[in-house]
Amino acid sequence: MTDVTLLEQLIAALKCLPGVGNKTAQRMVYHLLERDKAGALTLAARLSEAVERIGHCAQCRGLSEHEVCSICANPRRQRELLCVVEGPADVMAIEANTDYRGLYYVLMGRLSPLDGIGPRELGLDRLEARLDGGEVRELILATNTTVEGEVTAHVLSEMARTRGIKTTRIAQGVPMGGELEYLDGSTLSQALRGRQAY
Amino acid sequence: MTDVTLLEQLIAALKCLPGVGNKTAQRMVYHLLERDKAGALTLAARLSEAVERIGHCAQCRGLSEHEVCSICANPRRQRELLCVVEGPADVMAIEANTDYRGLYYVLMGRLSPLDGIGPRELGLDRLEARLDGGEVRELILATNTTVEGEVTAHVLSEMARTRGIKTTRIAQGVPMGGELEYLDGSTLSQALRGRQAY
Repeated sequence: MTDVTLLEQLIAALKCLPGVGNKTAQRMVYHLLERDKAGALTLAARLSEAVERIGHCAQCRGLSEHEVCSICANPRRQRELLCVVEGPADVMAIEANTDYRGLYYVLMGRLSPLDGIGPRELGLDRLEARLDGGEVRELILATNTTVEGEVTAHVLSEMARTRGIKTTRIAQGVPMGGELEYLDGSTLSQALRGRQAY
Repeated sequence: MTDVTLLEQLIAALKCLPGVGNKTAQRMVYHLLERDKAGALTLAARLSEAVERIGHCAQCRGLSEHEVCSICANPRRQRELLCVVEGPADVMAIEANTDYRGLYYVLMGRLSPLDGIGPRELGLDRLEARLDGGEVRELILATNTTVEGEVTAHVLSEMARTRGIKTTRIAQGVPMGGELEYLDGSTLSQALRGRQAY
């Protein structure tokens, strides 16, 4: 009934997507071929187009289809604020949910010596050059609050400190809607230590 | 940083996949563009190829890139056994896990009047013609054991009965490794009712 070759090739190809195993890939294939051929064709076109045309922004290292991305190229953004994040998804999240109007620097990872990710892999030399440029007045450290994210933030803060640039770290504490009773201990102690005037 | 157009288009396109929402699509995009561009290109190629070339087998209605699929075309399969299933994934599951060597008929759905799926949508006329052909000696009903699958099986069994063709239904009962204590009531009563000589 089911022909091995093409179907199986497509199933194998779908497994390159993160979180997609054999079962999910099968379900996707049957869905696409039965109910959404147009969607499948659009997806195929967008994939090749994106792979071909999306590269890294020359200034912030984020993903962009142009030499310089729309945020870095926007003259109305505050160029003295530089927010360092781990990945493009973080930029998207900040842009979608906050009124931040400064610029970004995308590390495309976090310091992780065990995985062979050091300062060079994260382009810290270019970030240093940028800090030396004198435009940046405040470096906002928005790496994740994981161990590796914290280490990265620490290294970056040292980098800024030697240049006399103000450094801030995104606030850590109880998330919105959080109940203290169910919060993990380190977040709670962090929240208490970082208490602010009310 | 992140350019709206191409990236967002790709994210939107990925959401045509079942079970993929905005967050998952974002994660997939960043994974593909950062770590698996080759995989993305292969996926794009396989998708267009599959949509273009995979159609329905003229005999069993399953998915095939040829006029007649490899199972229907195989002269070594037992042509007097016809197993009716709901979808191509069921064929794949039976082929992968059992030693069934007969043929299949793929309904591409199940009777569901509320969703507008009647005998015509399932190609039951073609199945009837096939039963009239006289080749089929046993019709194996392997639709799901859901309410709709059961209704479909009942209708098919009537179809075979009027033609004097033997009809069987896949066994229902306790699944392998199942503990009676935790089994739902209807499966347990089904298992007891269907008890066999040991």
